[in-house]
Amino acid sequence: MKYYAGIDIGGTNIKTGIVNELGEIISEHSIPTGADRPQEVVLQDIIYSVKESITKANVTPSAVGMGSPGLIDSKNGFVIYNNNLNWNNFAIGPTMTEALGVPAVLENDADAAALGEVVAGCAEGARSAMIITLGTGVGSGYVVDGRIVRGCEFGHMVIHHGGRKCTCGRSGCFEAYCSATGLINMTKEAIAENPGGIMAKIADIEGTVSGHTVFDAAQEGDENAVNVIDTYTEYLACGLANLINGLQPEVIGIGGGIGKQGERLLAPLRSKVQREIYKGLALPRIVSCTLGYKAGLIGAAMAAKV
Amino acid sequence: MKYYAGIDIGGTNIKTGIVNELGEIISEHSIPTGADRPQEVVLQDIIYSVKESITKANVTPSAVGMGSPGLIDSKNGFVIYNNNLNWNNFAIGPTMTEALGVPAVLENDADAAALGEVVAGCAEGARSAMIITLGTGVGSGYVVDGRIVRGCEFGHMVIHHGGRKCTCGRSGCFEAYCSATGLINMTKEAIAENPGGIMAKIADIEGTVSGHTVFDAAQEGDENAVNVIDTYTEYLACGLANLINGLQPEVIGIGGGIGKQGERLLAPLRSKVQREIYKGLALPRIVSCTLGYKAGLIGAAMAAKV
Repeated sequence: MKYYAGIDIGGTNIKTGIVNELGEIISEHSIPTGADRPQEVVLQDIIYSVKESITKANVTPSAVGMGSPGLIDSKNGFVIYNNNLNWNNFAIGPTMTEALGVPAVLENDADAAALGEVVAGCAEGARSAMIITLGTGVGSGYVVDGRIVRGCEFGHMVIHHGGRKCTCGRSGCFEAYCSATGLINMTKEAIAENPGGIMAKIADIEGTVSGHTVFDAAQEGDENAVNVIDTYTEYLACGLANLINGLQPEVIGIGGGIGKQGERLLAPLRSKVQREIYKGLALPRIVSCTLGYKAGLIGAAMAAKV
Repeated sequence: MKYYAGIDIGGTNIKTGIVNELGEIISEHSIPTGADRPQEVVLQDIIYSVKESITKANVTPSAVGMGSPGLIDSKNGFVIYNNNLNWNNFAIGPTMTEALGVPAVLENDADAAALGEVVAGCAEGARSAMIITLGTGVGSGYVVDGRIVRGCEFGHMVIHHGGRKCTCGRSGCFEAYCSATGLINMTKEAIAENPGGIMAKIADIEGTVSGHTVFDAAQEGDENAVNVIDTYTEYLACGLANLINGLQPEVIGIGGGIGKQGERLLAPLRSKVQREIYKGLALPRIVSCTLGYKAGLIGAAMAAKV
């Protein structure tokens, strides 16, 4: 059995671990990122954490894989730029190779998480899978034949020319409609139109409008909430159908906060996607991601296996 | 030097030829498709034509590559379905292998043409290239590291949710706006609004509205034509920016009837695309396809080389 070290770099925490060649986590360790510190100092902490993981697992990893947010130069193991971590031209790959004495592979964190779901999660065994993360933004990762298709990022695909303003500067992006933020905006608009309704009450009790407010209200029979979900899933189906028509993935895995809604989201979504795709195409399996935060760790380690 | 036989199957004509490993055509032959005949009879003609090409070139091909329209099962060399040729579950690959005694590779014709442009045309030497064909429909072919990314078909990516009706049944597809047909429709609408204008005159002289009517009128200073081109290139830039943000190809090659407009199309297009893509991304080279009909033949042969 071969083992791989995985490093999942986040804005708040960095997770490290040892993963065997089957995608099973053998050991884990975690440290706060402390992103306000110089990048070299953060890197020393990462090296410490991954060495702790190695000690805990008591195995020698064949290679180390890392998933980092930001613009990545995988070929040279550089994080070119990351605004949240304030990293610039950061040679994290070569430094890690030097510190651990094994080859290092660097991938974008969303790409790594997608690989994790294909190796050991919702898309296990699929020849091709697109993982769509519905969180603050819309992330996408595409894996074909066990390999990450790098740079695949469809959050800023315009699906409604001239539509909702997006943070990226364009109008009508997939992300502007289908991120958790997009859904929360739609929910807030519906609450403003009907301040005495069930959605408003749920938001009051919870003290905030979240991605599940509208699903909880719909479950209580709120027609306005049903309408918001209808609009939301229509846009989501539009974006997914674009990707299915365009790339024909075998599986679509829905992750992020909204992905946790499971069948409350997926059932209406599937029937809408079916209506939107080419007549001759088979509907891909559309499922929820299953690994949660472990996807990034497992995927980072498995990226080192390739 | 190795040689490959190429077969480009079209609705009207079938072209065959011998191509060397550098992508240079050594010999060519062509036959009318005669699509009203049974598929087995057409296939006998194709075998005859490719044998003529082999005789003319006086070399032995290492393999044969074919590009066919329709739904393709590349793995088994089957054309699953083609409505124009009326082909169904057609084992063209295995039959060709039997007839010529060499391995046969079958690809979608748009994919093969994209490979041709990468091997010997507008995207020569590019690590990744997306070829967009603006004809009756919008075709797309994507080549990464010298290999076709099969099934990549973005003509039916919705860019304007609820917009122009598309032949595929959806509304607002890239194809509905950006095909030659889409541009001709926009031109006709502008002519109807201004029947005494320059576009109307050009259409009168030529007896029809074509993809170049609006470009010719704009060159003569027609402001209405300039507006149509502005709208058209805005939609085209929107679709291309989706693909650039999503897949980051190094080169975008524009083919088909509209691609022939060269800089009259590309100059305004580039500045619009630049505005639409991610801030950090470099603008890909956006160029016209250069091989014309030869792209399909060269690409089919080169598909057999992989």
